[in-house]
Parts: sequence; structure tokens; C-alpha cells
Amino acid sequence: MALWSGRFEQAVSERTQQFGASLPVDKKLYREDIAGSIAHAKMLAAQGIISEADRDAIIAGLQEVESEIESGAFAFDINDEDIHMSIEAALTEKVGDAGARLHTARSRNDQVVTDVRLYAKRRCGDLLRANLALREALLKVAQEQGDAVLPGYTHLQHAQPVLLAHHLLAYYWMFTRDYERLVAARHAADANPLGAAALAGTSYPIDRQKTADELGFSRVIPNSLDAVSDRDFILDLLYAASVSCLHLSRLCEEVVLWSSSEFGFITLSDEYSTGSSIMPQKKNPDFAELIRGKSGRVVGDLVGLMVTLKSLPLAYNKDLQEDKEPLMDAADTLEACCYIAAGMLSTMQVNADVMLRSLGEGFIAATDIADYLAKRGLPFRQAHAAAGHLVLLCEKRGIGLEDLSLDDFRGESELFDEGIYEVCRPEAIVDARTSFGGTSHQAVAVQMEEARARMEEDRSRCAVNEGNVTED
Amino acid sequence: MALWSGRFEQAVSERTQQFGASLPVDKKLYREDIAGSIAHAKMLAAQGIISEADRDAIIAGLQEVESEIESGAFAFDINDEDIHMSIEAALTEKVGDAGARLHTARSRNDQVVTDVRLYAKRRCGDLLRANLALREALLKVAQEQGDAVLPGYTHLQHAQPVLLAHHLLAYYWMFTRDYERLVAARHAADANPLGAAALAGTSYPIDRQKTADELGFSRVIPNSLDAVSDRDFILDLLYAASVSCLHLSRLCEEVVLWSSSEFGFITLSDEYSTGSSIMPQKKNPDFAELIRGKSGRVVGDLVGLMVTLKSLPLAYNKDLQEDKEPLMDAADTLEACCYIAAGMLSTMQVNADVMLRSLGEGFIAATDIADYLAKRGLPFRQAHAAAGHLVLLCEKRGIGLEDLSLDDFRGESELFDEGIYEVCRPEAIVDARTSFGGTSHQAVAVQMEEARARMEEDRSRCAVNEGNVTED
Amino acid sequence: MALWSGRFEQAVSERTQQFGASLPVDKKLYREDIAGSIAHAKMLAAQGIISEADRDAIIAGLQEVESEIESGAFAFDINDEDIHMSIEAALTEKVGDAGARLHTARSRNDQVVTDVRLYAKRRCGDLLRANLALREALLKVAQEQGDAVLPGYTHLQHAQPVLLAHHLLAYYWMFTRDYERLVAARHAADANPLGAAALAGTSYPIDRQKTADELGFSRVIPNSLDAVSDRDFILDLLYAASVSCLHLSRLCEEVVLWSSSEFGFITLSDEYSTGSSIMPQKKNPDFAELIRGKSGRVVGDLVGLMVTLKSLPLAYNKDLQEDKEPLMDAADTLEACCYIAAGMLSTMQVNADVMLRSLGEGFIAATDIADYLAKRGLPFRQAHAAAGHLVLLCEKRGIGLEDLSLDDFRGESELFDEGIYEVCRPEAIVDARTSFGGTSHQAVAVQMEEARARMEEDRSRCAVNEGNVTED
Amino acid sequence: MALWSGRFEQAVSERTQQFGASLPVDKKLYREDIAGSIAHAKMLAAQGIISEADRDAIIAGLQEVESEIESGAFAFDINDEDIHMSIEAALTEKVGDAGARLHTARSRNDQVVTDVRLYAKRRCGDLLRANLALREALLKVAQEQGDAVLPGYTHLQHAQPVLLAHHLLAYYWMFTRDYERLVAARHAADANPLGAAALAGTSYPIDRQKTADELGFSRVIPNSLDAVSDRDFILDLLYAASVSCLHLSRLCEEVVLWSSSEFGFITLSDEYSTGSSIMPQKKNPDFAELIRGKSGRVVGDLVGLMVTLKSLPLAYNKDLQEDKEPLMDAADTLEACCYIAAGMLSTMQVNADVMLRSLGEGFIAATDIADYLAKRGLPFRQAHAAAGHLVLLCEKRGIGLEDLSLDDFRGESELFDEGIYEVCRPEAIVDARTSFGGTSHQAVAVQMEEARARMEEDRSRCAVNEGNVTED
Repeated sequence: MALWSGRFEQAVSERTQQFGASLPVDKKLYREDIAGSIAHAKMLAAQGIISEADRDAIIAGLQEVESEIESGAFAFDINDEDIHMSIEAALTEKVGDAGARLHTARSRNDQVVTDVRLYAKRRCGDLLRANLALREALLKVAQEQGDAVLPGYTHLQHAQPVLLAHHLLAYYWMFTRDYERLVAARHAADANPLGAAALAGTSYPIDRQKTADELGFSRVIPNSLDAVSDRDFILDLLYAASVSCLHLSRLCEEVVLWSSSEFGFITLSDEYSTGSSIMPQKKNPDFAELIRGKSGRVVGDLVGLMVTLKSLPLAYNKDLQEDKEPLMDAADTLEACCYIAAGMLSTMQVNADVMLRSLGEGFIAATDIADYLAKRGLPFRQAHAAAGHLVLLCEKRGIGLEDLSLDDFRGESELFDEGIYEVCRPEAIVDARTSFGGTSHQAVAVQMEEARARMEEDRSRCAVNEGNVTED
Repeated sequence: MALWSGRFEQAVSERTQQFGASLPVDKKLYREDIAGSIAHAKMLAAQGIISEADRDAIIAGLQEVESEIESGAFAFDINDEDIHMSIEAALTEKVGDAGARLHTARSRNDQVVTDVRLYAKRRCGDLLRANLALREALLKVAQEQGDAVLPGYTHLQHAQPVLLAHHLLAYYWMFTRDYERLVAARHAADANPLGAAALAGTSYPIDRQKTADELGFSRVIPNSLDAVSDRDFILDLLYAASVSCLHLSRLCEEVVLWSSSEFGFITLSDEYSTGSSIMPQKKNPDFAELIRGKSGRVVGDLVGLMVTLKSLPLAYNKDLQEDKEPLMDAADTLEACCYIAAGMLSTMQVNADVMLRSLGEGFIAATDIADYLAKRGLPFRQAHAAAGHLVLLCEKRGIGLEDLSLDDFRGESELFDEGIYEVCRPEAIVDARTSFGGTSHQAVAVQMEEARARMEEDRSRCAVNEGNVTED
Repeated sequence: MALWSGRFEQAVSERTQQFGASLPVDKKLYREDIAGSIAHAKMLAAQGIISEADRDAIIAGLQEVESEIESGAFAFDINDEDIHMSIEAALTEKVGDAGARLHTARSRNDQVVTDVRLYAKRRCGDLLRANLALREALLKVAQEQGDAVLPGYTHLQHAQPVLLAHHLLAYYWMFTRDYERLVAARHAADANPLGAAALAGTSYPIDRQKTADELGFSRVIPNSLDAVSDRDFILDLLYAASVSCLHLSRLCEEVVLWSSSEFGFITLSDEYSTGSSIMPQKKNPDFAELIRGKSGRVVGDLVGLMVTLKSLPLAYNKDLQEDKEPLMDAADTLEACCYIAAGMLSTMQVNADVMLRSLGEGFIAATDIADYLAKRGLPFRQAHAAAGHLVLLCEKRGIGLEDLSLDDFRGESELFDEGIYEVCRPEAIVDARTSFGGTSHQAVAVQMEEARARMEEDRSRCAVNEGNVTED
Repeated sequence: MALWSGRFEQAVSERTQQFGASLPVDKKLYREDIAGSIAHAKMLAAQGIISEADRDAIIAGLQEVESEIESGAFAFDINDEDIHMSIEAALTEKVGDAGARLHTARSRNDQVVTDVRLYAKRRCGDLLRANLALREALLKVAQEQGDAVLPGYTHLQHAQPVLLAHHLLAYYWMFTRDYERLVAARHAADANPLGAAALAGTSYPIDRQKTADELGFSRVIPNSLDAVSDRDFILDLLYAASVSCLHLSRLCEEVVLWSSSEFGFITLSDEYSTGSSIMPQKKNPDFAELIRGKSGRVVGDLVGLMVTLKSLPLAYNKDLQEDKEPLMDAADTLEACCYIAAGMLSTMQVNADVMLRSLGEGFIAATDIADYLAKRGLPFRQAHAAAGHLVLLCEKRGIGLEDLSLDDFRGESELFDEGIYEVCRPEAIVDARTSFGGTSHQAVAVQMEEARARMEEDRSRCAVNEGNVTED
């Protein structure tokens, strides 16, 4: 029998019960629900709204419920509709009237969003850690194998040679931005709605700061209508997760490309590959593909909640029950993807020789030839045209730029001399790019320093931000 | 040990196993997988590729597996990665080499998409039935309570009075269009990919038409690369479901509005309402809200798969494993929403008196006053302006159009006479709209006839389309 | 001064005027609006609602307006809010009261959606033609250069060799499915809403079938509320366009890959490439990239309109004004992408030698080696394992499968004999796959026949479906 | 002739030119492009890479170009492909070789993203101001008319009475969160990519900090690959705009509801309403509907760019050209919506009497009756049930809770006495909710104080953040 049944004459049928019930989803929030109720009970007692005896009975009863859930002994009943009712019903059975007093000065509307905020905070913490693990893996590979020189691409065409470290650091910075978005999402979740009651506050002399302190919320939401209807903090998490998954889709696209026999730049470890049921030779980058594909579901989670929120009037509407699945799904997905990607990167073999060999296939020195002329005084646009003509000449002869004779060069411009051959070497090209943020060893060393410093900083921010209630 | 393990030296760790495994999701496809394997075995034997004894052993073994799964006795093992491997492993354990011959001339690539197509076809059938149930409910209410007159709205402002039947039939036609989209999605799924093997066909003398006939597919996919990489049929289902959910969101928005104390047009049955944990007087249209909110998740399912498919090269890529969850989720969601909406509509109480009373609040006869003048020769734009002035006059006096004196009317135009009062009656306004598709009783009766005929037609199409293998 | 100004006392300010005006967008609908008004005037006169003289004046006036718009002489005024008001105001200025009688028995609500339906129908016709052009280009390349053998990929790993014709035909069938979706979208648009008036029909004795015939609509919408509020036909077009753009994104992803120096399978013509402002050697597949990227905007158009439609109550709401931009944008984008892709494919150079050479790099014969054993009686799973071991052996030695000695083969299984070397040749592998839909020359010839027949059929459907009013 | 034409032998046809050209869109970036080029020229001269004479010629030439564009005298030519080429071509025509030297040590890849970042920063500033205007309007109405008491709703059912100020402040806090998201988006844009060149940095001794300072960027992007490929800052803006538009959709949903004759809570000013072409009495909340509807397009912009970015490998790809339209569209849309919403709210008439009257229609005192019993010692769940029975009793008798006799009350519980009637008054209910964030006058006054303080803070942050280059 539902707890709000006073007014109702007819029972809800099984099918509708199942449709309306959120229990299969929100039972994952049991820890948060119990923590929220304990905090509420402590505050009620401190404010003299319930007795200390009732408080103690409630806390003991809730702890017993928590143990039963964790041991698997708790019998969930779909008729209880949601985790909040399940726990309260069990509590009341255990401790009687004290349990029935727990819901004083609160409503399911503020209770449920308190639970979801605690959950979102906890999961943001998990995602920050997963993000750090992934960035750590990128730094490690950059450190250990970053001296390999590979073609830098634009339009998937060879453009200019770059250090592998430089390439991996580009991803490092993407994920560093994701860290910031996750921190923002965590901050958004980190506000106490408890005490908003149904929508308008309560006439009981409650202390919302006290429950905030108990639960580790850093602030109290200043408007009760907003407190029960706001789900922005979930959008923020879904958005942060979506962007991070898009970054992962880019990284994994490259892993797939690089694992192909055409590129051959890397060989994934067996642990991060799978075979084919029909083609015995296959060694497939399944994990990279799965991560790439999962970007879809997380973007779908974001869009789904946006559609749900569109045009909802104040304050609480049942539509908001649809907030939990995308939240849980996106968090689970991103967390797993980060760790799998970190493992995949850490265990892959870098084929530096293949990378280097492939540099001979394009005309990757063309920009430097143009720059060579420009530095000798030719306006850049003319230097660019001259280098273009040399590329065309090579294409017609089927040779590389380094194979041109000095006469060939000088046929295009008198400014060329023997030094041009040194300019064409991939390693020389790389190390010429000394501008801040460029790909020379020197510039990349500076960048690595900055990346490591940022890593340390974020690691300590992550540790500091860990709350007291909701962490494992 | 995975079946493709010949080439591999290192076992995949548990975490990656879990990440890559689709078993928790695709085990719902066990019936389709077994049906597909039986059809394949029959064809292999008919073509002389395996012996009849092997075929019989395979079929008996698979039927045994199916029974075990349905009785709950089957022990799923995450290490089997997916439902296909789970079943094949169990089969081979039961029947030995015969089982190991089942995978001849096919690949997981064509096997998995065969299963998903069979599943999509079956679920389309379920959704067609759910769609008919919803339309049936609309017709029933339109038939039984459709004579009620309520304000028709544009911009949520009273525009012109309409019959409730007319209003409900507007939704009937929306859902009738959805029926067509579902039929199209079903047709899209209804093509046999089996025999495409990994991607390029096979050198065995298979007969793809035979497996198509066995499985109830109406045609064979003519390109093996397309067969293993095409997921358009899932997009079609997700799109059909999304539009239908958007229609439901519109219907439920109106149910929510009409249940409000401001409108009061309907009273939902207790069965389709819920109460509040804190506010004893509340009778909330939770089910309407949930249906409205669930439109988000289904649109999210569609967008998610679109993102996943973007930029995938041919042929099979592991990203495609992400196709099943949105498919299953959207089908489950739409099916439940249709039945719940049908139940909610069928059991609601229509407050015809409240609807009629509310017609007095606007100036709903204004168009007909303008038409009255236009029919007497005044150009419509001038007639429109005249009616506008009369509305303004009423607003200033705080009265209705029917309260104006004949002098008031004639002060605006000499064309008015006593007949104007009859023109202003809501029932008269309704019944004046005799144009095809209009709201008069007469025109609505014609429309009801068309709607019922369409219902019969769709009901028989639905029955005819039911396949032989995949239906319950 | 707005035409509905009778009731209003205060003018709308410039900023709000600009915000509310749809003229900058909907002026593209001028032809449809004039065609709709002429049809309406003819019907009104035929039904005796206006005089024949008025009808003639209206038609002459509207034709004059159309000429002025097409010559650029027409002065659009943002104060007219939309194209409908612009044209009606100009008409009334030209022909006086007759013009003011045109709006009898219709409303902007049915007028605007009539225009949009005519526009959508016309653009669907354009898109069908663009779709045929693209498929034509695919068939042409398949016909002329389809004998090239390239690696078929799964997971972007070499899987089995395929004919280029087979690969291109996979795309042909994708776009053939898109054709069906566009036909469905065209059919959805092809219904006459005119005569629904504001939302409830009209008391004038109109003939909606007559305006349908005049405008080339194949049916009349049977419910006036639905007629003014339904925008499903736009969703259908946006969905069809989105899927087609996703298919294009897959095709263009492959064009980009194949143009890379790593693959080198094709060389794009200069016409469909661009250079770099800084790197003289670059020849970028810009057009393929742009097409791939534009899939985003079209999916965005679809999602945008879905969000807009969510939760809208009946009947017309101003939100629906947001329907035109996504419609126009998606149609323009898809049309351009089809023609550009067709041009790009038609002019690219296929490097058959490079494709063939690349077949040596993987172990693409492994499946056929397994099949070889299976056909000699080894259960497939064991044959698969044996082939896997041979691949491993090759990898360790750094050789190809064709480089193994017969002893190597027989070390794995006694079933091998000299014939195995013939089995390993790419051309032999291709031509072994004779199953329906497979990649052998023979099977592909059958497929080409089916594709060409379908092409002819669709070409004639496209021609037949062209309406009389809305086509260029 | 395109500037990169050295390598090309065949001209690009008109159709492809049009498809590839971004000029129609990116010409809006002319100011940013010129500012970027001037900063680059100054830096090149300061570093001794070009002469001071060249620098001066370049700056003078660019200023001349800017004047021509602003006066309308500049002749844009689609053959110039984009705004960058247009301006450089014009410059080179004016100043010869100096102009041809401007492109030294940069590429279009870093140039274009510099422009877009400057544009995004400027538009974020505009959006922050628009956000403040909207919040200002909410505060003003809350201040001036906030004492009105209306029903607070959950599930669109009367729940508990609230102050209008409290209701409006809920939106104030939503938009305050949007302000933070816009600040984050502005910060994301605020980093200098110039000097990344094509993708790898440059061998010229450039000073990227100097161009950052010139352009008002607060930091320099530390990785050149990331610099040219990162578009997260646009996603951040699109996301911030999407959420803000969703908030606006909720606000406008309520404006539409409240303007209906059923609610009648507000009357929009004529300036923010429109009429009907057929129904003279209509006064439609068109602007609220349009704002609500436009949430779709902005969400579509976000989704579109997400799809475009999915799976793009490093570094620059032409797909990224699709970044500008969603950015511009979302910024224009949100900016307009904020100002229109602010105007609509500021000019609406609040019908406090209607709001108050509507409070009598539900059983809005039920919670307080339950609390009354709970405060007298009844466990809350029992008190809740008792109040539920009283509601049922009223419903059966067709009266309000305040109409029950004391005997009726005491029939349910002995704890009731005469004081219960005072408890039922709406004003008393409102003022009882004194908890922090509650709806009592006292709590709302505290909240207003906090809101105003935040307003001042944000206003000064907005002023401080205004850059020196990109603002009007």
C-alpha cells in the first residue's frame, strides 16, 4: 500500500505500478538516501523537532537497513515504488512511530534530489580520478616513447613531422579541459536542496546549513522552488561526459587508423584486441572501436534529458524521474572508457621505425622549403608557390623532395644552396619548430613540464574535493 | 576461453572482458539466435554442406539450450562474451563436432545482424499492436464522450469551439501516421543478411533464399558488405518511435493541462494518478508526465545511434555493438507508453459541463461574427476589423459578445440583425463548420467513419504481417 | 500596420517586430504562396463565394506580384511580418476589395502550412533527382573501374579481398534506401491542409478536393486541427536527409582514408581537392571532409525541430514558425552534398595497382585456408584455430601466408596439399565467393543487374511523381 | 585565383567553389580577422621578421580594408573562398610585397581559429549583458509585484501558495547559473592559438605572448596541434546557450499558461502580443511561444557540432569549417531571446486578484493541516493520512477545507481546535514557510538581498572581463 494512499479509493494496477516505479533504477541510490535521512534526523533532533530517542532509533534502524541491502538480505518490493519508500517502509517496520516521524519537514521532492546530488557528486569524483588515470597514461607514453617522429596530419594528409610526445600531449590537453568541466559539474551538484520540502519550504524551524554540513554540501540552495526542479547539475555532468567521450572518439579513431596495416604505427597488445569468429588472422582494435562508438550513447543521454526538461513549468514534475538513467549511464560509460583507453595506450607497442619510414612518402618538407626562401627575403606567398612547383616536379618524376638536384632547386629560385638538404631532414624539421607550443624537442620539453605541473595540481584538487559521506 | 583464441597468446583481463562483452544486453536475443542457427543448419544440410545427422543433432541441441534458458537453468558466463558464443559453446558441449560445424559458411557479423533484424521485426509487430490499442482507446472516447464541446485553442488561447471527438481524432491521425512509420521500419528490418558471412559472401554453395524463407524474411540483402554494416533498419524504428513519443508528449501535455484545477476538463481515474508524500490533497497526473518525459529518452536513443554511425567506414566495426540497447530501450518505452496512455484515456472522466462553461470566458464567437459580416458582403479584412472592435468593446465593459445589445452590434455595422445571437452560440458555431475535416457533428461523423475504416484496415495488415518465427 | 490590428492599441516596437517576423526566411515560399492563393481564389469562385470578376482580379494581381518578386522589383517590408502578409498587402493595393476577399474561408494557419507542404514536395523532388545522380555516379565507377581488387575491411583491418564494384554497390544500396525515405517524406507532404482555416474548418461551402487538385495534392487532410498543427512531414524529410548525410559521412570517411598517402587507393581530381595556405605539397580532400562534416548540421536540424515540437498542445502554436529554417537548410545541404559527391567520385582516379599491392600486407587468405580445411572435413572451429596458428607463425617469421612451405602447412594439418597456394591468390579468393550477394565477379554481375533495374524503376517513379505546380 | 594554386593545374568549377566557400558566413569575422593580422604584423616586426616599414604598410592597408567593408564599398568575391583570403588579397593589391609577407609564420589553420576565438569572446560578452538584462527584469517584477500570492504547482496541480517574487526568483537563479556557464565559455575561448601555424609551430622566432597581449587573450595555448583542432570553446558556448534556452522554454511555457483564459494570471502588453488573421478576439503570446520554440534550434546547433566533431583525427580537418554557423546562430538567438523575454516580463500586467482567487479552487492548505497535527505530536505519516481523509470529505461535499466545521475536523482527530482556520489562510500558509529559501515574506526578503548582491557582483565581473579589441 503506497504511503500516500489516504486519499485514494482504488489500487493502482500492476502494469501502471511497474510503469511508474523507479525502484529498479533508483535503488542504486540507497547509500545516498540513507545518508540523507540520517542527516535529516540529526538536524530534526538538534532543532527539537523530534526527540533524541527518535533520532537514535531512526539512525540505528537505517544502519540496519543499509547492512541488509549491502548483504543482499533486503527484500525490495516493486510496490514500494522507489528507493525512498522502500527504505522508509522498512524503517517504520523496524522502529515504529519514530520512523513515521522521519518525513517531518521534508518531501520526496527535496529528498530525491538530495540523493541524486550526492550521487552525482560521488560519481564526479570517480570521473575525475578516471580522467587523471587517462592523462597519466598519455604522459607515460609521451615520456617513454615520445621521441618517435611521425607525420603530423591535416586533412589526413601528411603535413609536417611531429614528435609522438607532441601528438599525445594534444590529447592530454583535451582531457585536461574535460577535467575542468567535471569540476564544474561537481560544483553544480554540490548544493543542498534538503529543506525545500515539497516546493515552498516548511514551517518547521529547520536548519538547512546543518544538513548541508552533515552531507558535505558546500552551500545551501537559496530558493525552494528551484531546489526541487533544478536538474542543471545533471546536464552539466552529461555535457562534460559527452565532450570527453567525443575526445575519446577522436583518440580512438587514431588508434584504429594507426593499427591498420596501411598505417602500422602501433600494435595493440593482445589484451586490448580481439579476434574474429571466421577470419583467423584478424586482430581487431575492438576496444578502441567500442569507446569510439559509445560516444553516441553519452551524447544521446545528454540530448534525452534536454528534451525531457524542455518546456517544464515549475516546480517538480514527474517527468524529472527520467533524470537518473542518463546520469548513471553516462557516468558508468565515461568511467569505463577512460580506464580502458588508459590501459590500451599503456600497453600498445609504438612502431617508431614505421612512423619514420612513412615520412618519406609525402612531401613533408615543403613548408620548410618555402620558409627557407621566405627567410632569404622572398615574400611568403611567392615562396609558397615556388615550393608548390617543386612538389609538382617531384610528383611528375615520382621522387621525393630530398631527391631533387640542387639545379632543380635553383631552377625555381637562385636563393637555394646546399643547405637545403639539411632543411629537408624530418628530425631537422621537427627541431626547427621552436616556437612556444611547437613540436621541437625543446618546446615539447617545456610543454611536458607544464603538463606534469598541471597533473600534480589536479591530483591534489581531486583529493581535496573528496567529500566525507559519499565516497567509498 | 574465447572461440577465436587460436591466434592469441595472452588472456584478456576481466575488466576488458566486461567492457567488451555484450552478453548482458544481447542475451535477450536468445530466441532469435537459436531460430537463426536452426535455419542455417537446415540450409547447410539441404545444400549438402553438413550431414543430416549433424543437422538433427544441432537442432536437438539448440532446442535443449532454448529450454534451459527459458527455465532459468542455463548458466550464462560473461567469458562467453555474447549470446552467440554462449549458445554455440553450450551446443558444442552437448553435441560435439556437429556443433563445431554449425558456424560453417557464416560469421558472427552476419549472425548478429540476423538476430537483431528478427528481434526488430518482432518488436515492430508488438509496437503496431500497441499503436492500435492506443488508437482504439481514442476512438472509444471519441465515440462515447465526443459530443462534449470544448474550446479549440491556438496559442493556448480560446480560438473556436470544437467537439471533443474532433480533438481526439486529431491525435488518432497522428498515431495513424506513426503506424505507417512502424510498418516502414518493419519492412526495413525484413531482409535476410544471413550468408553475407564476414563481409564478402562465402565459397560454400549456400542458399540464402532458403534461410530467408525459414526465418520469414521477405527478401534477401543483395550486397554482403551492406548486409553486415547496415543498421538503417534500427534508425527507422528509433525514428518511428521518437515521432510517436513526441505525439504522446503533446497528448500528455494536454492531459496534464486538462487535469489542472484551472482547466478541470477531465478527471483522471485513481488508477492513473498518484498522490504526494507530503501534500495530502494532491492527485497527480504522474503517468501523463512520465510519458511526456520519456519522449526525451527515445529521442536520445535515436541521436545516440546516429552519432555512433557517423563516419564509420565499411564494413563491420565494433562500434555497431552499441546498436542493441537503444533499440530495446525505445521499443520497450514506446510499447509501455502506448498501453498506459490507452488505459489513462479509457478511464478518465470527461467533465463536459466544465468544458462548456469555459467557452463563455473568451470571445470565441468573434470569427463567426466576422464571417457573418463577410457573408453579407463586407470584404473579410474589414469584417475582421469590425469583430475586433466589438471584442475590444466587450473587454472594456467586462462582458461577453453575447451580452452586447443589437445597437452595440449595429454601431459597428448596419449589416447586423437579430440573427447574430444565434450565430454566437457555441453549438451553432461548431455545427456551422461543415467543411470536409471540420468540427461540425456531420463532418466529424464522416471523419469517424474514415477513422474506423482505417482502423480495420490496419488491424488486418498487422495480423497479416505477423511472421511465423519471431512472434510469441 | 499589421492586418490583424483591429484589436490592438499599441504598435509593436521594431525589435519585437524583427524577432517575430519570419519574412527573411519565408520569402523563399513566394511561389508556393501565390500558387496556393490562386487555387483558393479559383475554388472560392467556383463555389460562388466570390465573384468571377474578383477571382480574375486576384489572379491577375498575384501574377503581377510574382513577376515583381522574380524581377527583384518587389519591395519587401519587414513590417509585413511574413510572406503571406507581404503578398496580400501588395495584392490589395493593386486590386482593392477583391484582394481583401481572398482571405475568406482560410486563415494564415492553413495558408502557411499549405505553402510549406508545397515547398517540401518540390524539394523532395529535387532531392530524389540528386539521389539518382549520386547513385548513377556510383554505378558508373563500379561499371568502369569495378574490377579492381582491394582489401575488404572489418574493424579497419584487412579481412577478405573484394571487388571495388562490390564495395561501391554497398553504398549504392544505402542511397537506394534513402530514396525510399525521401519518397515517404514526399508522400507525407502530399496532402492538402487548405480549408482547415484557423483550426476548426469553416462555415463557407468550400471544396477542399478542388484546391487539392489545383495544387497537385493527392489527398485531403481529414482533420482540421491536425491539418494546422502537423509538422511530421518536415520531420520525415529531415530524418531522410539525416540518414542520407550519415551515409555520405561514411562514404567520405573512406574517400579521406583512401586519399591518404598510407592508403593511396585513389587520387582525387584537382577539381575536388584544395591546397594549403602554408604547405605547398598539400592536396586536401576538402570536399569529402566538408560533406562528412555537414552530416552534423542536418542531424542538428532534425533534433532542433524535434525539441521544438515536444509537448506542444493542439492546435497551431507560434513555435511552429521555427519549422522552415531546418527544412530549407537540410534540403539545400543534402542536395549540394549529393551532387558534389557524385562529381568527386566520377572524377577520381582509382589506383588499382596500389589496392592490389596492399593485399599482400595482411593475412587476407586466412579465412579461405580455414574454409579449405573445413571443406575437407575438419569442424570449422578447429579449422579456424589451425589457420590462426599459421598466421601466428607468419607473423613471427615476418612473412606472408603464401610464403609458407607446404611442410609448414602440413605441420598444422595433414589435410593440406599443393592446391592451398591457388586458394591463397586474391583473385581466386574473390571469385570463390559466389554466394548470392557475394563478391565474385559472377555474383557482382547479378547484383549490378539488379541495381540497374532498380535505377530505371526509381528514375521513372521520380518522373511520374513530379507535380504540376511546384516544379521548376 | 586561389592563393594556394601553385600546385594545381585545373581550376575548381563554380559549383564546387560555392560548396567549399565559407565567405558568406565568415565575412562576419572581418573585424576579428583584421585585428588578428594587425597583431601578427606588429609581432613580426617586433621580432625582426618583417621590417617596420612593411608592418606600417600592412596596418595602414588593413585599416583601409576595414573602412571599406564597414562602408559597404568592399567588393566581396566568392572566388576568394573565405574572409581571410578576401582581406589578404585586397591588402596585397594595396600594399604589394608587404602584404605577401603578412602570412609569414602563420597558416590559415591558426588564423581562422584566432578569429573564431575573438568572435566567441566578443559574443560571450554580449550574452553576459543580455543575461544581466533578463535577470534585472525578473528582479524588477519581483520587487514591484512580488507580493502577489499564487498557487505553487507540482505536477501542474495546486500544491502550496507561494509569493510571485519567490516564483520569479527561481528563474533568476536558473539564469544566474547560465551566467556562470557563459563565463566558462568565455574563459574557454580566451586563449591564443596564433603561432601554432599549420599544426606544428614554426621555425620563425615568433612571440606568441605578444600577440596574445595585443589581442587581449589571457593565455597562450601550449600545444600547436591542439590549437588548430580544438573547438571545445564553441561547444561550451553552445551548451551554455542551450541550457539557457531550455530555461527560457520553461519560463515561456509558464507565460503561455498564465496568459490563457483558464489561468488569467497575467495580461501581456500589446507590444508583446499579436493578433490572428482570422480570429479577431485573439491576443496571442507569440513572443513567448517563439522563444520557447527557439530552444530547439539552439539544442540543434549543439548536437550538430557534436556530430561534426565525432571521430575527427588530429589536427585540422575541413569538417571544422562547419563550426561557425551554429556558433553565430546560437549567439544571435539567445541574445535576442533574453532581451525579448526581459521586455515581455517588464511590460506584462500581473493579475494578483485572479491569482488569489484561484487559490480557493484546490485544497492548498492540506499540507499545513497535516503539519498542524504533526506538530501536536501525531507521526507525520498519520497526520498526512488524516489530512487526506479531510480532502476526500470536501471533494464529496463539493466544498473547500476552510468550509469544514470544527466537528468535521475533530471527527478526524481530537487534536484540532479553532486555530485550524487561521492555519488555512493562504497568506498565513505563505508566511509560515520561514525556512531558509522558503516562500515567507521574511525568507524571500533575505533571498532578494542575496540575488541583488549577486547581480552587482556579476555586473562588475562582466565589465571587468570586457576585452580591449573585440568589443564595439
